[in-house]
Amino acid sequence: MDEIGWALIGASFMAEDYVAGLIDVADGATMRGVFSSSLKRGRALAERCGLPRAYSSLDQLLADDTVQAVYISTTNDLHAPQTVKAVRAGKHVLCEKPLALDLDETAAMINAAKAAGVVLATCHNFRAAGTHRKLHELVAAGTLGVPLAMRIFHAEYLPPRLQTWRLTNRQAGAGAILDLTPHDADVVRFALGDEIEEVAAIAVNQGLAATDIEDAVMGVMRTSGGALVSFHDAFTVPHAGTGVQVHGTEASVVATGIMAREPVGELVLLRDGRDPEPIAVPDRTDPFARTIEAFNAAVRGEGEPLASGIDGAKALAVALAVGESTHSGRAERVARL
Amino acid sequence: MDEIGWALIGASFMAEDYVAGLIDVADGATMRGVFSSSLKRGRALAERCGLPRAYSSLDQLLADDTVQAVYISTTNDLHAPQTVKAVRAGKHVLCEKPLALDLDETAAMINAAKAAGVVLATCHNFRAAGTHRKLHELVAAGTLGVPLAMRIFHAEYLPPRLQTWRLTNRQAGAGAILDLTPHDADVVRFALGDEIEEVAAIAVNQGLAATDIEDAVMGVMRTSGGALVSFHDAFTVPHAGTGVQVHGTEASVVATGIMAREPVGELVLLRDGRDPEPIAVPDRTDPFARTIEAFNAAVRGEGEPLASGIDGAKALAVALAVGESTHSGRAERVARL
Repeated sequence: MDEIGWALIGASFMAEDYVAGLIDVADGATMRGVFSSSLKRGRALAERCGLPRAYSSLDQLLADDTVQAVYISTTNDLHAPQTVKAVRAGKHVLCEKPLALDLDETAAMINAAKAAGVVLATCHNFRAAGTHRKLHELVAAGTLGVPLAMRIFHAEYLPPRLQTWRLTNRQAGAGAILDLTPHDADVVRFALGDEIEEVAAIAVNQGLAATDIEDAVMGVMRTSGGALVSFHDAFTVPHAGTGVQVHGTEASVVATGIMAREPVGELVLLRDGRDPEPIAVPDRTDPFARTIEAFNAAVRGEGEPLASGIDGAKALAVALAVGESTHSGRAERVARL
Repeated sequence: MDEIGWALIGASFMAEDYVAGLIDVADGATMRGVFSSSLKRGRALAERCGLPRAYSSLDQLLADDTVQAVYISTTNDLHAPQTVKAVRAGKHVLCEKPLALDLDETAAMINAAKAAGVVLATCHNFRAAGTHRKLHELVAAGTLGVPLAMRIFHAEYLPPRLQTWRLTNRQAGAGAILDLTPHDADVVRFALGDEIEEVAAIAVNQGLAATDIEDAVMGVMRTSGGALVSFHDAFTVPHAGTGVQVHGTEASVVATGIMAREPVGELVLLRDGRDPEPIAVPDRTDPFARTIEAFNAAVRGEGEPLASGIDGAKALAVALAVGESTHSGRAERVARL
């Protein structure tokens, strides 16, 4: 394979702002076009991004032999059917989170990709950031000792341009939990190298989403290793900023601003008898560029994507358990995958 | 009443380090002595603190007509019976948190104090600190807009000298929840002027406490006003520091180091389009001195204590619901008082 041809499924802000431009600058990859359920939106995005074409149907895109890989960023309900269709057409798939709406869907996606012999990856961009990789390294190196607790602050104000289906359309997978909690789950799994076993959460509507849809949730996760994790995910909080903290027996790391799509944010190490120590993060590679680079390598048979389909399914399983907990009023076990 | 005579019930570190010395310097109050179940401990504390006497029994203390007020800081199981006995003997009572072990006990304490016409106060020291009063003011003044969320970080490493009954003796009220969560509940009630309706929590044993006792807990509270509150209470976390955050529609306040007995810690205001703004807290009055001053005034009929018996009962109700949630695996309603 000389050049990996890419196409976008979904004319989303993610596709436009974070992916389209990076693929053309990636080594050995080139953009072929975009499919949107609205041809008008597809054409507009193609024009703005300089893409050769806007497909008029998904079938048309999948029939294009110059396309080997697709990035799927449609509404959450379309991830599974579009992925299954794409992998059956022999396309490698990088799919946005949440990977799907339920675990039957993720199993079907993973099995279909395996049967087709193509790469299925989940676009969990945080683990591609230098800041998160540094957190992972600090835990893995034992610098923090035994991890006791994490805190994930992922409560922001949903930008007006995104105040569409995420706030209103339950069938499409609306709500703060499906949108934000899979990220938290992946951040925990990546930082700690540990699985989340149980969750308990309370969700509310704070007036931004439709009244039957949660726009803020807080909860607790317990990992197999016995660490507790708190998370706060919201569309309603304008001024909090984001952050991740990992507290271990030997040291704590406090990271601010790192639940971001850009390679930003700072880390500080807290240890006995020392002033807070800023931790240098020289690696400020764009997380989406790294995600695409690893994906392209996997397509060439040279390694694995940063987050697999299983990783996406596991993150979804946590979010589903959180959602279930907010409805059942019970702590819920996370499905084992 | 010219001079309010005080006695200590319980020769605790709280009595010795935070209360005994402040009473003698308070206007119109003087220390008469201490009762400990161990006369040896009582005598040693009396000597170290320069108290006139160590009573050999609670009855002896309560029979002392020069004593009008007592500070109770025994193990949690003794708070209720000792308070009831003291108020029936006509003594005003400042009792440590948790006010008791269950709500029947707190009702008995409150009713007995009312019947005796004496002051019953709970030693919720955080609301006596200038930092917490500033938080309360910012919320009350509307500076933050509508409160959406709070986060309470109250996970520290239990000092070795306190690694006694708190880690081992369930009957005495051991565990992180009874020790720390009432504080959180009072901080929320005081800062927001709102009641906590529901809680969900997960507790673990991280190897410091006896295996059947939780030494770390994380949970979520939901208030009547629709705010979410996360809390992390632990005896096991050495390097995290403490903190309180309040996030509103108009601004956020991030306070660090303020879950402390000393009048320390800093506040920063976060608003749109401005750099973080440090908030001056000129009021660094010792929280226990303020607590005692307000209590003495209440004894003289000049005002109310900072935290009443009802305040103590409400904070306990939250902690009991948290404990229940960790056992039942359910979100629990907080008893209404």
